[in-house]
Formats: sequence, C-alpha cells, structure tokens
Amino acid sequence: MKLVIAVVQDADAPALTRALGEAGLTSTKLASTGGFLREGNTTLLIGVDDAQLEQVKQIIRDTCRTRTRLITPGLPMAETPEAMVGQPVEVQVGGAVVFVLDVAEFHKL
Amino acid sequence: MKLVIAVVQDADAPALTRALGEAGLTSTKLASTGGFLREGNTTLLIGVDDAQLEQVKQIIRDTCRTRTRLITPGLPMAETPEAMVGQPVEVQVGGAVVFVLDVAEFHKL
Amino acid sequence: MKLVIAVVQDADAPALTRALGEAGLTSTKLASTGGFLREGNTTLLIGVDDAQLEQVKQIIRDTCRTRTRLITPGLPMAETPEAMVGQPVEVQVGGAVVFVLDVAEFHKL
Ligand code: NI
Ligand code: NI
Ligand code: NI
Repeated sequence: MKLVIAVVQDADAPALTRALGEAGLTSTKLASTGGFLREGNTTLLIGVDDAQLEQVKQIIRDTCRTRTRLITPGLPMAETPEAMVGQPVEVQVGGAVVFVLDVAEFHKL
Repeated sequence: MKLVIAVVQDADAPALTRALGEAGLTSTKLASTGGFLREGNTTLLIGVDDAQLEQVKQIIRDTCRTRTRLITPGLPMAETPEAMVGQPVEVQVGGAVVFVLDVAEFHKL
Repeated sequence: MKLVIAVVQDADAPALTRALGEAGLTSTKLASTGGFLREGNTTLLIGVDDAQLEQVKQIIRDTCRTRTRLITPGLPMAETPEAMVGQPVEVQVGGAVVFVLDVAEFHKL
C-alpha cells in the first residue's frame, strides 16, 4: 500500500479526480496554496495498492503535467506594443509534485 | 513514532478530537473534501508513539466507524408515497479511512 | 528524499516560507487548525533532499521555535489590579511540531 500526495493546480484537480474515480480510486482533497506551484493549488491524498501505483502516476501525468498553451490576448494592455496585439502567446500551465510514501497500515472503518 | 492520517466525516471530527485529547493525544485538523467519504470530511494528523497506536485506532473506531442510524423523516417530500411518511429510514453515517505512516524523525520545537 | 510536515503558528508561517525560499526550497501550505498548537496554525509540506534536511530543521527552529515575548498591555481590563496596569507580561509564542517521513518516490511532472 502506498499513499500518494499530489500537489496539482486547482484547474487540473477536477480532471484528475474524475480520472482517478474512473480507475476505481478514491482521493481526498486538501485545501492548499503556494510553494511547489503557483498560487491556487490542490493537494490530493490518494491511497493505492502497490500494483496500481504506476497507473496512478500515469493518470497524474496525463491530466496535470506541465504543458504549454497558446493564448491569444483579448484585451491588449496599455503598454503592449501594437505589433504584439492579438499575437498568440505561449504560457505554461499545469505541473504536479508527487510524493509516494510507504503505508505501514491501512484501515477502512 | 507513527503519523496517523485519518479522514473522517465532519460530523464525527469533534467527538474524535475530544476523545484523543482525553487520551493525552494532540491532532491537527486539515480542511478536506470529497473522495474517500462523502463531501464534508476532515483530515486529522495524529502523531503517536508506537505503544499508543492501538489505542488511537480504537478511539477512531469508537467515534467514527460506519454505522446505521434510524431517521424519521419530518417533512415528507411531494413524491413520497403516503405509506412511507413518518416511517423511520436507516441511513449510513460515519466511516473513516486511516493511513498509518512510519515517522523517521519527530521534533517539538 | 524526505517529506517534512511542519505544523507552525499562522504568525510564523510567512517568515518560514520566506526563509525556505531563500534556501531554494519550496513548500505547500495546507489550511489547518487546532491540536498540536493553539488555534490558527498552518501545516507546511516541504520536500527536501536528505542532504538539506538539517538545514530545513534549523530554518524551522530559527523562525518558529517556542519563545517568550514581553507584551505591555495597552488597554487594562476592568479586573486588572492597578499595580499591574502597564506592567510588561511574558507570553509564549511560536512552537512547531515537525514530522520527517521517508519518501519512496518523488516526481515533478
Ligand atoms: Ni505497501
Ligand atoms: Ni516509530
Ligand atoms: Ni531519501
């Protein structure tokens, strides 16, 4: 048995929770902020049998890994050079920090 | 030394915290939601000497384990068949998910 | 790799987070209350290489350890004996409870 502690972005948490649920895995969501990722993150506790650990890591990778997204700015700011207005900009989103801990005992009461 | 991470229902958390306190044990309450239990749960961190671990598990069992409760509906809903109005209904409450982790070091500063 | 779980007073959390950042360490802040310390505490998750663990413990000690502070009461309460009015009073602040856990796996996605 392992306890996976995953710190992910708030925006990625619903997709992660849904994908875990589809794999028959339950998770507990802790309110968290700052640090490992930019403000507004979520910390998930996921209990998992050793045999399913690779699957959990793959699910986190699929739903949360750092990736770039092209954003086309809608409202140009005053200081934006005219040439830049409306140009798509690449921004980084997502990312996850994952701790896997050995569980000495697990009980469901 | 062990770290007990207990996810319990909000409704059971005060009784659990009180019982732990009476046993001389301190706990830290983390705000948490969803997953292991229905919405509105609480995650407790409980540091405990190996010798007291069984007692902690018994306290969690006593205050939080899944149990049924008879509820007599007060306000019948429009669709409730008349024969059901006022009949006691068995609902499940409580439940706890407990992870016990080995602690490499413990410090009180 | 170690996971340090530090429960500290809310008032000490910003200094701790800042000092950890200056040491190149990231932390995730969980909302928490009660138990190990008086109401209003913060639980920090800090991932750290074994080689930096002593430094993390020293930083927590420096920013959070229990210490006394002299407080000169400004507004005397009705029942305060006159001789006591304006006398500095020693109060205890700070304190930290620190769990160090072994990490089986650590991933940054
Ligand atoms: Ni195991
Ligand atoms: Ni031990
Ligand atoms: Ni290690």
